[in-house]
Amino acid sequence: MSDDLAGEAAALDAADVLRAKRADFVLQDGQDGQDGQDGQDGQDGHGTGHGPDAAARVVYLDGNSLGALPRGVPGRLADVVDREWGRLGIRSWTESGWWTAPERVGDRIGRLVGAAPGQVVAGDSTSVNVFKAVVAGVRLAGAASGRDEILVDAQTFPTDGYIAESAARMTGCRIRSVEAGAMAGAAGPRTAVALVNHVDYRTGRLHDLPGITAAVHAAGARVVWDLCHSAGALPVALDAHDVDLAVGCTYKYLNGGPGSPAYLYVRRDLQPRFDSPLPGWNSHADPFALAPAYAPADGALRGRVGTPDILSLLALDAALDVWEGVGIDAVRAKSLALTDFFLRCVEAYAPRGRVWSLTPAAHDERGSQVSLRCAADGQETMAELVRRGVVGDFRRPDVLRFGFTPLYTGFAETERAARVLGEVLA
Amino acid sequence: MSDDLAGEAAALDAADVLRAKRADFVLQDGQDGQDGQDGQDGQDGHGTGHGPDAAARVVYLDGNSLGALPRGVPGRLADVVDREWGRLGIRSWTESGWWTAPERVGDRIGRLVGAAPGQVVAGDSTSVNVFKAVVAGVRLAGAASGRDEILVDAQTFPTDGYIAESAARMTGCRIRSVEAGAMAGAAGPRTAVALVNHVDYRTGRLHDLPGITAAVHAAGARVVWDLCHSAGALPVALDAHDVDLAVGCTYKYLNGGPGSPAYLYVRRDLQPRFDSPLPGWNSHADPFALAPAYAPADGALRGRVGTPDILSLLALDAALDVWEGVGIDAVRAKSLALTDFFLRCVEAYAPRGRVWSLTPAAHDERGSQVSLRCAADGQETMAELVRRGVVGDFRRPDVLRFGFTPLYTGFAETERAARVLGEVLA
Repeated sequence: MSDDLAGEAAALDAADVLRAKRADFVLQDGQDGQDGQDGQDGQDGHGTGHGPDAAARVVYLDGNSLGALPRGVPGRLADVVDREWGRLGIRSWTESGWWTAPERVGDRIGRLVGAAPGQVVAGDSTSVNVFKAVVAGVRLAGAASGRDEILVDAQTFPTDGYIAESAARMTGCRIRSVEAGAMAGAAGPRTAVALVNHVDYRTGRLHDLPGITAAVHAAGARVVWDLCHSAGALPVALDAHDVDLAVGCTYKYLNGGPGSPAYLYVRRDLQPRFDSPLPGWNSHADPFALAPAYAPADGALRGRVGTPDILSLLALDAALDVWEGVGIDAVRAKSLALTDFFLRCVEAYAPRGRVWSLTPAAHDERGSQVSLRCAADGQETMAELVRRGVVGDFRRPDVLRFGFTPLYTGFAETERAARVLGEVLA
Repeated sequence: MSDDLAGEAAALDAADVLRAKRADFVLQDGQDGQDGQDGQDGQDGHGTGHGPDAAARVVYLDGNSLGALPRGVPGRLADVVDREWGRLGIRSWTESGWWTAPERVGDRIGRLVGAAPGQVVAGDSTSVNVFKAVVAGVRLAGAASGRDEILVDAQTFPTDGYIAESAARMTGCRIRSVEAGAMAGAAGPRTAVALVNHVDYRTGRLHDLPGITAAVHAAGARVVWDLCHSAGALPVALDAHDVDLAVGCTYKYLNGGPGSPAYLYVRRDLQPRFDSPLPGWNSHADPFALAPAYAPADGALRGRVGTPDILSLLALDAALDVWEGVGIDAVRAKSLALTDFFLRCVEAYAPRGRVWSLTPAAHDERGSQVSLRCAADGQETMAELVRRGVVGDFRRPDVLRFGFTPLYTGFAETERAARVLGEVLA
């Protein structure tokens, strides 16, 4: 069985059109023993189909939490620090394009989420952008509409719910918690905004963005999509589906680095009515007029707030270079192949009754991660996996998460990860 | 006259106890001709008292806008990227202390603004922190108090006013614009919060933090101080003066880099009642419980929002190393000496009636910049100064700003800056 899967993995890797992209990332080869794997792979007698490099490699399946380091980032960041800040100093705000970086980087993200230029701005955290989007969404409805309800995905990543609660409190709305699967039927005449996660962070379930968006619109409401777990892993097609507002982080599948700037999408036709609760000077029509009265800028930059965080923003800019020449459809095809294959390997290697998948089998309901419920000792199981060089993460109370990042995850290491999981569970 | 001042500058530099700190910064020596100064200093025949290095040096007087690059930053940032992110990856959230960086860096800032540990958290932009502070300040008063007025410094840096306006709109308050000098008398029974700039960004005027704070308290209200133009330039003594809330940026006198994370101070006894309008998951009592209900953390970290921006935050952390062994009183003494000396040099070198100082002559009313109103052609005058290697900045309609950063600004270059200004104005 394992030789068959290992052989299949080798064939899949050989046919992988994205394979060369792996070289664009810094990934640990584990040779220095720093990563706690001390040759387990060599001891387990399952080397068939793996070269020595693959066998020693740490399998990084946590790109859904923190993407790997793109090779172009260190050099670019050093240049930003040494030359743009150190040498040019204040002149870099104009001469090095710092001032316009939020829109420029935003447009690059836009390309990956199906947004035409001029609708995405990078900056702030996801939480702060959720606040902007939900409040602005409520204001689009207007007080006269009688729409005083914010629907929130019941399984949302918590920060969205906390922030939506604050937005509701500050706009005179109330929160209604609704399973994402029921969101399309839940929006009604009182609904101002629905806040939905495109992919559930815990289960990896992909929600129906086109269907929910259309249903929320049919109810006369607005939808805010949280793309944290989908952007860079699968097609989002914001423009094509007429999404109103969207937010996302950039440190998962976009590999922008720890806590890198988030982004906000405001559909072009809504921008003139986008009324931000955080109207900082960077969103002013003429920031350097330093005028006492606020007058919002046109376009996506109306979503800006304060001075952009240039070091992180330009590290993200460099990280986005890895997407040059990559089509998101190819990414999606490989993502599904990886998660399909991992599920088959887990089925083959894991002892009966120890883990079962929370991630939908249907392709159109799956993001780019596999979440396994672990019958017992989930936290210890993940700790042991990490010690053996298989890096996923654990979410309480009992979920093992494995993220698959098509730009750098291969099939042989996917097979190895499942095999090590089987050994740990045995 | 100029020889006297040049000689005096040399003596002042020789006696400068902070002089050695300059070596901790990357400052342009202009030798490569990139900075448009092409030896003007050598042509003007005023070399007395300057060595060749000083003569060729760019005079960077814009540290009140973007601080110079501390030498320790590039190496630290490279380590954060290459090792902490590239090698350790997700493990760095715990093993490299990423998770607690906002509080750790906050405490280091706290030391510079007179805040005991546990009251300052770093992150987000100044604008976002103004929003947190003003809304939380209004909530401290409580709806039952009848306090529905937010006083805003009439000359405030605009973003504070824009954000306060939004905070007022979202909390049912109204804004009253008051000159900072009149703030102490303006607070009354309707006042919930007063938002005041410690140093005026345009004129460099230092406002009376102890007096205004006491007067606002006497009126039963809270005060939010914006420290952007004072932190790192003069003593702030937040704890000693019982300040309620404060915010500030770190890219000016704290040299954190372009758009580096801002900070929020919440006085310890107010923290249990600090009710954030941006209750992101990073401010939760147990973030990784990923609980659907929000429960705020204790302490300063209640002011956190989303995932901290680690690259920028740790660049800032490295930048703060320059403060080791530096007392803020010595910084203040040198700052006043520098601005006094610059004003005297301008008086000596500038043609009559071309510029006059907007910056108060009285020490207790002066920050660490000198602002000169320029009778005509202010923008062109500054552009020409920059071409000649004297870097200040221009604020519409007619203000030339020169920032003095005691850790790296010397007296000889201060004299040179005034001399070049005199030449340009002539």
